Amino acid sequence: MAGTKAAPPVSPLAPAGGFPALPPVAGVRFAAAEAGVRYKGRLDVMLAEIAPRASIAGVFTRSATRSGPVLACEEKLAALHGGGAGASDGGFAILVNSGNANAFTGNAGRAAVDATVKAVSGALGIPEGHVFTASTGVIGEPLPAERIVAAVTGLRDALSADAAERAARAIMTTDTFPKGAVETLDLGGVPVTIMGFAKGSGMIAPDMATMLVYLFSDAAIEPGLLQAMVSRQADRTFNAITVDGDTSTSDTLVMAATGKAAMPRIAAADDARAAAFEAALGRVMLDLAHQVVKDGEGATKFVEVRVTGAATEQDARKVGFAIANSPLVKTAFAGEDPNWGRIVMAVGKSGAAADRDRLSIRFGDILVAEKGWVAPSYREADGAAYMKRADLVVGVDLGIGSGAATVWTCDLTHRYIEINADYRS
Amino acid sequence: MAGTKAAPPVSPLAPAGGFPALPPVAGVRFAAAEAGVRYKGRLDVMLAEIAPRASIAGVFTRSATRSGPVLACEEKLAALHGGGAGASDGGFAILVNSGNANAFTGNAGRAAVDATVKAVSGALGIPEGHVFTASTGVIGEPLPAERIVAAVTGLRDALSADAAERAARAIMTTDTFPKGAVETLDLGGVPVTIMGFAKGSGMIAPDMATMLVYLFSDAAIEPGLLQAMVSRQADRTFNAITVDGDTSTSDTLVMAATGKAAMPRIAAADDARAAAFEAALGRVMLDLAHQVVKDGEGATKFVEVRVTGAATEQDARKVGFAIANSPLVKTAFAGEDPNWGRIVMAVGKSGAAADRDRLSIRFGDILVAEKGWVAPSYREADGAAYMKRADLVVGVDLGIGSGAATVWTCDLTHRYIEINADYRS
Repeated sequence: MAGTKAAPPVSPLAPAGGFPALPPVAGVRFAAAEAGVRYKGRLDVMLAEIAPRASIAGVFTRSATRSGPVLACEEKLAALHGGGAGASDGGFAILVNSGNANAFTGNAGRAAVDATVKAVSGALGIPEGHVFTASTGVIGEPLPAERIVAAVTGLRDALSADAAERAARAIMTTDTFPKGAVETLDLGGVPVTIMGFAKGSGMIAPDMATMLVYLFSDAAIEPGLLQAMVSRQADRTFNAITVDGDTSTSDTLVMAATGKAAMPRIAAADDARAAAFEAALGRVMLDLAHQVVKDGEGATKFVEVRVTGAATEQDARKVGFAIANSPLVKTAFAGEDPNWGRIVMAVGKSGAAADRDRLSIRFGDILVAEKGWVAPSYREADGAAYMKRADLVVGVDLGIGSGAATVWTCDLTHRYIEINADYRS
Repeated sequence: MAGTKAAPPVSPLAPAGGFPALPPVAGVRFAAAEAGVRYKGRLDVMLAEIAPRASIAGVFTRSATRSGPVLACEEKLAALHGGGAGASDGGFAILVNSGNANAFTGNAGRAAVDATVKAVSGALGIPEGHVFTASTGVIGEPLPAERIVAAVTGLRDALSADAAERAARAIMTTDTFPKGAVETLDLGGVPVTIMGFAKGSGMIAPDMATMLVYLFSDAAIEPGLLQAMVSRQADRTFNAITVDGDTSTSDTLVMAATGKAAMPRIAAADDARAAAFEAALGRVMLDLAHQVVKDGEGATKFVEVRVTGAATEQDARKVGFAIANSPLVKTAFAGEDPNWGRIVMAVGKSGAAADRDRLSIRFGDILVAEKGWVAPSYREADGAAYMKRADLVVGVDLGIGSGAATVWTCDLTHRYIEINADYRS
């Protein structure tokens, strides 16, 4: 269970430009270290320090078997938002380790969280209730908290505004590339930055490739407003992607807005700056969400499924996920097979209201099927040529209402089986 | 799209004894023919003729994009049960073709059904409302009904009480072995037979490997009672299996009880013979359902998932299917990896009420995890040794109620990808 692993080949869908240059965000510093949580010789712990009075927001897995760190984060965030603790003078911290998920580890799991939180709290001089942790890696094994605790002082001493990429690398597990995104915008004449990084390469992977997302901005914004924006944008980004339909016990998104930009605080949803900020935040989140899909285990195709004409938005999401999670649809993409019959099948099983004879299907701009049958203009050769692309868009119009949703997924390949059927080692 | 295909290797999970000897059922005759629906040189149409006054029952796919033949069968069955047409003097027939599913073929699909029904009705002298058809194979292409119609006279002339195995072979698509089962029982001193055959090797496969099931008995039983039994047993057999979580647009089960056995008709649910008959029927259906899983595309493991201690039976089914459909769980089985963490994940995402700290997991008799952590007695080597078996039993107790359910599935292997990513040809 120990030792080193050969680095997997980088996903063919990785961004051509590599990891983006993430600019400093006033009030945020990062550090990463090799703590030897599971493997030697790789960054496996990251610390983010956030200035006092920042607004913190979060979104977590809905799994009924949530990990200890997730439960602790939820409690702390609820206390911050409920009790006005966000106005406390203390700063905030985020501590993340890879290699071990500290999930399904019983009471020992919570004790390990408490030990690392205490170490960070002491080293940085911030309240324990302001320290958010996450763990990603193998589950069911006790977290060697002492190795992480031993690394905390060194992490504190290394904190730097420019270490975001190292932090992004430290939280990787089966990811084949680090994932970062940034937007800069003008809010009423004041330049503001939103940047962040993420990990995840299956909803869960051999070592529980949990999705973790950390976002930072120097914007000044009320915590409740920030939370509403983050939740809303999570639904159309991270909650609209799927690699294998599996849900981690540890999925975590935390956002911090430090308020260090020289701007009046955004305090109302109808402030024009709120919409601009949320739009930029949504772009950063969508970029990161797409990168997670593009690093889907074994992925060779990035697939956007656009559903329109559903009875409701909820129905549109059901159809989108039924298509995006169907092993038959995903293997067809892997085989570059324009097998629209499988799309019909997935619509049928989705549970959404549908009428076979009103359904239309498009691959990109190519009308494939309509009114209960293949489109008269459709030529199989066109569909087959389209399927050769690395980025695919599948359009499904149900023709019965105005509900719409878009979800993203990847194909299902031999490599997924290879990665996931390997005995843990 | 035409030509021949090399026969796939027979599933390693196929029954050791091969296809069972299916005894004649009084009042039922079968025939099969090579009609060249899609491929030359293979049986691809089967006809079953059933004596007048038989009781007919059926269960169909719940897909919202049901095929034309399914819609027609549902209408006919509703008319039979609603209008007392079951007492009509006419006999019944079942006509099934492989090679083409006649699904998503618009109005032409219904016309093709009507043409074949008319041919059978004319050749056998039975009402059109008594002819049930099914089609399985590629979807979205017009059914060459004329080839099937041309075969009907030959089929009629070949009808024989002993041709059930030929019929079972004629409905195969990607199946690697024909599937049959039989039970004989004593109903108040009268010997009665229940036998049947099925096809299906994924919920859907490259050529839409729809599940089709046909059951026959000489028992005398009221149609309404028979329908209730078939529906109930379908829920715990064919509706409790999954290969890839995908649902065909054409899944069909039809049962005929001819009443030719020299017994008083079973007319009440509290007749002691009703329970005995239903139990035997359930065994035949479960046997066939297990064979469908064992012919799951690429399957190398047959997996029984037993869920107990759920808040409700519905929750137990949710948990069972979340485990049985999880690509991560199924690839772990393929890799003979006792990765119980993925079972925890699947329980968590199922949507069922669950408490991590009350959950226990067993592989066969081996207690793996309990009370939120790995069991003190568990040794990874024991789990790994257990996973080498071809038949696996995964036990999950949620520890919160008395809801229970069992579902069956197979593993997810490279071969599944090979079969399903191949370009249709």
